[in-house]
Amino acid sequence: MDMRSGAKADNFRHGGNVYALARGKGGVLAELLDYSANINPLGLADSVQDAINQSIHNIIHYPDADAYELKRSISNFYNVEAARITMGNGAVELLYILCHITKPGRVLIPAPSFSEYERASRAAGAKIQYYMLSAANGFVFDVEKISAELDGADILFFGNPNNPTGTLIARTEIAFMLRKAREYNTLVVVDESFMDFITDDSLYTSRSLLKEYPNLIIIHSLTKFYAIPGLRLGFALTAPDLAARLQAAKDPWNVNTLAQAAGVAALADRDYQAKSKEIVNQAKKELFSGLTELPGCRPYPPAANYVLVNIEQTGITAAKLCSKMAERKILIRDCSNYPGLSQDYIRVAVKLPATNKILLDTLRQVITGGAL
Amino acid sequence: MDMRSGAKADNFRHGGNVYALARGKGGVLAELLDYSANINPLGLADSVQDAINQSIHNIIHYPDADAYELKRSISNFYNVEAARITMGNGAVELLYILCHITKPGRVLIPAPSFSEYERASRAAGAKIQYYMLSAANGFVFDVEKISAELDGADILFFGNPNNPTGTLIARTEIAFMLRKAREYNTLVVVDESFMDFITDDSLYTSRSLLKEYPNLIIIHSLTKFYAIPGLRLGFALTAPDLAARLQAAKDPWNVNTLAQAAGVAALADRDYQAKSKEIVNQAKKELFSGLTELPGCRPYPPAANYVLVNIEQTGITAAKLCSKMAERKILIRDCSNYPGLSQDYIRVAVKLPATNKILLDTLRQVITGGAL
Repeated sequence: MDMRSGAKADNFRHGGNVYALARGKGGVLAELLDYSANINPLGLADSVQDAINQSIHNIIHYPDADAYELKRSISNFYNVEAARITMGNGAVELLYILCHITKPGRVLIPAPSFSEYERASRAAGAKIQYYMLSAANGFVFDVEKISAELDGADILFFGNPNNPTGTLIARTEIAFMLRKAREYNTLVVVDESFMDFITDDSLYTSRSLLKEYPNLIIIHSLTKFYAIPGLRLGFALTAPDLAARLQAAKDPWNVNTLAQAAGVAALADRDYQAKSKEIVNQAKKELFSGLTELPGCRPYPPAANYVLVNIEQTGITAAKLCSKMAERKILIRDCSNYPGLSQDYIRVAVKLPATNKILLDTLRQVITGGAL
Repeated sequence: MDMRSGAKADNFRHGGNVYALARGKGGVLAELLDYSANINPLGLADSVQDAINQSIHNIIHYPDADAYELKRSISNFYNVEAARITMGNGAVELLYILCHITKPGRVLIPAPSFSEYERASRAAGAKIQYYMLSAANGFVFDVEKISAELDGADILFFGNPNNPTGTLIARTEIAFMLRKAREYNTLVVVDESFMDFITDDSLYTSRSLLKEYPNLIIIHSLTKFYAIPGLRLGFALTAPDLAARLQAAKDPWNVNTLAQAAGVAALADRDYQAKSKEIVNQAKKELFSGLTELPGCRPYPPAANYVLVNIEQTGITAAKLCSKMAERKILIRDCSNYPGLSQDYIRVAVKLPATNKILLDTLRQVITGGAL
């Protein structure tokens, strides 16, 4: 058990901070290849772009506080009753609101995972208990061992697929944890923000468990798969009474008008969805294979659109590698600030084949010292 | 002292709910005249529209978590150090975050005022103590009497100008309350969301008091004056240490990319600012005068871009009047759900002279029964 009492701001540094880099380097956004944020490389769907353009004249009105159309789209698309949906200004906002209203004394976080679970918990005054996933075992979720730590934990957080490890957990395993968690009155937050990238999620998503387990909270971002992180859009799926509590604890207008319009258009665009899954999955296989062939690199098999790579055998630290890549206008994620990871890990997003080739070539140059 | 222990959802119904009305009436947004939300009738500045259009391609990136350019613009425009600024996804989000982190046991709210002060306080578990402003005295803020109620209040909330009363409070009066509040360890939240409509705010804004009073929190919306409520944009000005606490308790990416770009453009557009103040102030005078001439209507002198009207002598309730106006596709604000107001009050926004004439003509028809 690793009980942390303090945390530095640097622990919560994220990828995707393109504006800071562009400022620091005197560069411009368009020149950067951002492999540090896990965004669908197909970019904005035309349908989403059109929906935004057609809604700009409506920003002189308040957003629809009921998010009526969008909740209906989500309800239909994900087959969940509207009364279970709480809309978020991004999925992360909902982590904060959840922690503010439930005021957990202690939370359990398998690590490494998305750092906002910890930051949101700390914001509400919680103590953090990590369960360290084993690098040697490929960061696999051992649900029996994790469940054995639930006593005294008010919330268990994890991602499925998990970020940055790229591991995917079967729903049967999650149901096992939910049963155990129910015995200890533990809320279980399953972050499915990258689930849309899974070609067939039927064995993995916990959505069908919502009715049986009122202690289940699913967090879902729409910004990664639909490439709209700058607009902010996410939702929580919970028991209806918790949805009502979340609703009461947030700004009624938290989801802006353009994000609502974009979400409705995105969920209706089956072509974009199918094409994205196909292209990203193929590119992922090729990128994984290319990373395997890089000297000293050991990538972990990725379930979603990002790859965690152990670079220990390159003899270069993640910080150094990221810095050298940034000089070449390629952002990759230094994972050394993830609890549970050392200076030997980087994460790269899956982008399109042409840029993935640039990434691989540049990584090879830097690692083999040809460009040092 | 009016200590409320419970509150109904209806108490927090707002104006500007155009989507719900358009759904209910089978109508479309464009056909409605929305006098229920207090938005600058000049609409989107061209400069803001251009900034949004030019930033849409950037929504594939996360927003700048530092809001670097926007904070610099706000710092320069309002003459406040950047370290005092916390950006909000609308001003209202910041009320919720403030309450979540300060966990007030009891808050003092002069009533009537913006209902989100109460809703945000309740979300954090606070008890509400109202100080009822006197309708007979024009809802004037008697700072000595309000200050006498500060003992035991963790936060005092009010708007300057106040909404829906339209009253404006001199900075010297606010300084008096801040001194008293300091003695009782009371935080004072001054909501200046409508201050930008004041032609010369130098005697009214509390910004210059920030250095002397660390218990002062200024909330400021940019959505009313710049007509971007659908985009969400606001900020808090506080002591630097409270700004750091607010920052730590919120989603780092809470202000979307388009809102950040819109904010920078808006604060740079001096022409739009000057034109807005001139046109809205002239239209306000004419609308006030027109309302005074309506049978049974007694408008309160408005400081900002909305007018509170006592309609008791018309013999029609606010609910009935609003319903009759909605049938004619004009939304006005039924104020009967404001604590401190009865069924005899409506609020109307100040729009452009041509539509204000339609509002006045339609009100006259409905009130005089010609259209009943």
